[in-house]
Amino acid sequence: MYRTHTCGCLRACNVNETVTLAGWVQKVRNLGAMTFIDLRDRYGLTQITVEEHSAAEVREAASRVGREWVLRVTGRVVEREAKNPKMPTGDIEVVAERIEVLNEAQTPPFTIEEQSDGGDDLRMKYRYLDLRRPPLQRNMILRHKMAQEIRRFLDSEGFLEIETPYLIKSTPEGARDFVVPSRMNPNQFYALPQSPQTLKQLLMVAGYDRYFQIVRCFRDEDLRADRQPEFTQIDCEMSFVEQEDVLEIFERWAKHMFREVLGVEFAEPLRRMPWIEAMEKYGSDKPDLRFGMEFADLTEAAKGHGFPVFDEAEYVVGFAAPGCASYTRKQIDALTEFVKRPQVGAKGLVWIRVEADAVKSSADKFYTPDEVRALADRCGAKTGDMVFILCGRKFRALTQLCALRLEVAQRLGLRDPKKFAPLWVVDFPMFEWDDETQRFYAMHHPFTSPKPEDVQYLRSDPGRVRANAYDFVCNGTELGGGSIRIHDQQLQAQIFECLGFTPEAAEEQFGFLMNAFRYGAPPHGGLAFGFDRLCSLFGGSDSIRDYIAFPKNNAGRDVMLDAPSAVAQAQLDELCLELRNPEA
Amino acid sequence: MYRTHTCGCLRACNVNETVTLAGWVQKVRNLGAMTFIDLRDRYGLTQITVEEHSAAEVREAASRVGREWVLRVTGRVVEREAKNPKMPTGDIEVVAERIEVLNEAQTPPFTIEEQSDGGDDLRMKYRYLDLRRPPLQRNMILRHKMAQEIRRFLDSEGFLEIETPYLIKSTPEGARDFVVPSRMNPNQFYALPQSPQTLKQLLMVAGYDRYFQIVRCFRDEDLRADRQPEFTQIDCEMSFVEQEDVLEIFERWAKHMFREVLGVEFAEPLRRMPWIEAMEKYGSDKPDLRFGMEFADLTEAAKGHGFPVFDEAEYVVGFAAPGCASYTRKQIDALTEFVKRPQVGAKGLVWIRVEADAVKSSADKFYTPDEVRALADRCGAKTGDMVFILCGRKFRALTQLCALRLEVAQRLGLRDPKKFAPLWVVDFPMFEWDDETQRFYAMHHPFTSPKPEDVQYLRSDPGRVRANAYDFVCNGTELGGGSIRIHDQQLQAQIFECLGFTPEAAEEQFGFLMNAFRYGAPPHGGLAFGFDRLCSLFGGSDSIRDYIAFPKNNAGRDVMLDAPSAVAQAQLDELCLELRNPEA
Repeated sequence: MYRTHTCGCLRACNVNETVTLAGWVQKVRNLGAMTFIDLRDRYGLTQITVEEHSAAEVREAASRVGREWVLRVTGRVVEREAKNPKMPTGDIEVVAERIEVLNEAQTPPFTIEEQSDGGDDLRMKYRYLDLRRPPLQRNMILRHKMAQEIRRFLDSEGFLEIETPYLIKSTPEGARDFVVPSRMNPNQFYALPQSPQTLKQLLMVAGYDRYFQIVRCFRDEDLRADRQPEFTQIDCEMSFVEQEDVLEIFERWAKHMFREVLGVEFAEPLRRMPWIEAMEKYGSDKPDLRFGMEFADLTEAAKGHGFPVFDEAEYVVGFAAPGCASYTRKQIDALTEFVKRPQVGAKGLVWIRVEADAVKSSADKFYTPDEVRALADRCGAKTGDMVFILCGRKFRALTQLCALRLEVAQRLGLRDPKKFAPLWVVDFPMFEWDDETQRFYAMHHPFTSPKPEDVQYLRSDPGRVRANAYDFVCNGTELGGGSIRIHDQQLQAQIFECLGFTPEAAEEQFGFLMNAFRYGAPPHGGLAFGFDRLCSLFGGSDSIRDYIAFPKNNAGRDVMLDAPSAVAQAQLDELCLELRNPEA
Repeated sequence: MYRTHTCGCLRACNVNETVTLAGWVQKVRNLGAMTFIDLRDRYGLTQITVEEHSAAEVREAASRVGREWVLRVTGRVVEREAKNPKMPTGDIEVVAERIEVLNEAQTPPFTIEEQSDGGDDLRMKYRYLDLRRPPLQRNMILRHKMAQEIRRFLDSEGFLEIETPYLIKSTPEGARDFVVPSRMNPNQFYALPQSPQTLKQLLMVAGYDRYFQIVRCFRDEDLRADRQPEFTQIDCEMSFVEQEDVLEIFERWAKHMFREVLGVEFAEPLRRMPWIEAMEKYGSDKPDLRFGMEFADLTEAAKGHGFPVFDEAEYVVGFAAPGCASYTRKQIDALTEFVKRPQVGAKGLVWIRVEADAVKSSADKFYTPDEVRALADRCGAKTGDMVFILCGRKFRALTQLCALRLEVAQRLGLRDPKKFAPLWVVDFPMFEWDDETQRFYAMHHPFTSPKPEDVQYLRSDPGRVRANAYDFVCNGTELGGGSIRIHDQQLQAQIFECLGFTPEAAEEQFGFLMNAFRYGAPPHGGLAFGFDRLCSLFGGSDSIRDYIAFPKNNAGRDVMLDAPSAVAQAQLDELCLELRNPEA
């Protein structure tokens, strides 16, 4: 036995026991003839003391050890003279009677403490050392706990976890697949799944009734900040359900998670916001409801007063920023610069300052004070508030104002990571029009069912058709989403047609699913949650990387493993592959 | 709500309730004016009756429906006149008041019942229909339950489930990797992990102390029967442990699984058999202990009597088959043919028939009756037994006799799938000599630690060095295995040398791990269990395919999805890859 206790568990009640601990040296301090060693493991930190009258070997060992050495220490637990109430083990220390060096360590390239002095790149290269730091250990423990809790809940509700294959068929629709060349089937490739969508639908056809899986998914996309080529989904599907059944059970699940993991209670039913309301009130299909600042449609009131910018715009929209009337010229300029950044793309920012005795606006010369007041009133502005207004094409202006709303909230300290405002966004449109390719795309995916009352518009006005689709949103982030699927072949064929598939192309890509649907497909639906994102939300962080043990960098590289890398010619030969010069 | 109850839950106490069920039509029977429909879902089967005086729409619907149609049925629960004690719902039936066809179904290509009339290929192609059959549903439910129970146990013991990446670095040692071309890093490849071995060791360096994962692994090997290119491991690792600690906790885990899942108790500590004993007594490092028939070394007693076959052999070995003295000439010939098959490879079979009054042997002319009797006695043969003897190179003869032992046990009905005989095999050799390449290979993997007392032979006699390695074996199958790892860099370097690596080659392949070991690696060890195999053992089947939702066939193809398949030229271009004609 290497140890009798962990470094986190000794308390005053253990005083006088002889114990053996094992762990890493966090710190060594010499105070006169005394040496103090902080010994760390996953469970905590215990102070080891070596005294003047300790045995020579013990003093010799203590004098040698450095940071991150691995020790086994046997000694007696004694009460500390100077107790440390900040440490769970702060009431005691262990007086070393034997110190065994289990392994030496080179000086680590950065400090392994709560805060590290290492830069991002260095910490990615030595990820195993970064992972030794307590904040990352807490993240991994949180992730483990959440995974356990997810499974416990879903198991108790009759969901079966069924593993689906990772080597599946490539489909050109959707994001780009990672592909895997097959040696036994030369010139052919498997694809890694972007999600087990079709497989879980086949499991419903197979009668499994309630399925889930915490499953890795893969997308070969250009990586934006905080995207990973492999990520983890909580993937769920149910048979014989309508939208309401899915929302009920996963609302209960979400509340269970908040309660069990964070101790946060949501007594009321979660808000269900139609997509159009989310867009018009918050400029986003994932509104952050931790704060107000709802948008008001000012189009009618703002147009026709000779202000060309508004007069030429399709849509004018604004919101009141609480208590911001005191913003200086410089602060307003900064926000104007913010909305003009290419990522936001607005042309300019109109403001109304609502003071006790007067309203002032950057558009004063086109409006009477009463007209300005009326605009501010529409936004629900109170004395002391500042109204911000943007205009342009409707959804573009809304999206731009959303960016401003979040920026203002950030400056006001309203985006509190300890506060949670979950909601469902429902009634999504079935299709999104793409100007570039001049065609409709499925907003969720081609298997999403339209609302029965909107099926009549499928041919005449596809943009009007709403889907039985829903997203679970919290704090401005989409945590999950799903839909009731189509289980009727004729309807499915019609949707493929709307999406511009010829029957042959639909057969080529989704033949196995459409074929399966001929043998008794039950009504079914489901959803998937982003597990990495859920962990980071629960952990109070914006970065999913901090919740993934071995993440990749923005170039898709694992710099610790040095992957991807070249493979031997012999292996390429076996795969009947040749490399082409990327410069050519 | 599509249903008020499932098809498995109605009992006599529900009589007179009005219920709604949804499910698949298993069978329709018309008996005069009555129609009986067996409605099936994952939970069971309920009999629906349509009576002469039922509403016209109901009778009309009942007359239309066929096998595997999906129905929603509302009706009243009534007590059956003819109860069926074999069905959990056999006390009741539901008199239909409304039948809604949720989906029609084409006639399935095979029957979807306990036993199917479909061949293997057809059932693989329509896997979603095969998965609808109750035996496969029971298998998937068993697998789910086992996964839950594994996690519950390991969580309660402080193991953290930590997800490791699937896109990692290719290493030429071991089996062949599946590789994944990287678009963002052209001409470079990720590899899919054969196991998370090095990653879990890095997690130990990172201080996670106890790790587990139920994780997919990938090996691009030529598929033998019941091998899959992707398979699932229960992967575990612990820090600050010796072999005894690992065996203790996983023996407790195994007993927990047998108890919770199968209700089988093992009160006694499991047997721990040294590798050499397993080989000499059973001819295998995974002995089947459900029955006896231990081997006896007959070399000394058999040689030197003028029987050239034995005299020329390195090793003579036999066992007594209980009650087989009555075997006919024909039966003995069949066993002789069996051992001569190329898969076994013996040259012939010597037998001794032990009867009450005499012993008879196929080698009678070289031995006196007393000498024959002595050989039989050495094998522990009793009156009525038959002794079988093989000879040749020691381990070759042992392995051949193992095949015969299992064959005889099979014929005697001793390989009972409801009986379980688990054990640990320990003290494996570190290295295996390969005649072909004239070098030693690691029997487990290059990170396995040698027994401290055998380190002295590393240079002088590597074949003599035993490892701190262990396998968990049950019923002749290796379910799992692992080792205590090397955490000392110098020792690791020495092992790489024994395996014929130059320091540069070792650095090239395992540099990141050896580098990590410079920063304070704790003593650690672990093991991995084959989850697919464990499920099939618990389910009483020889086939892992029956416990995998969507397995691949022997050519590595998913015939349902038709994967692998060709990918578009555009995608190959993005990946800077060209296909080579496999014929060339």
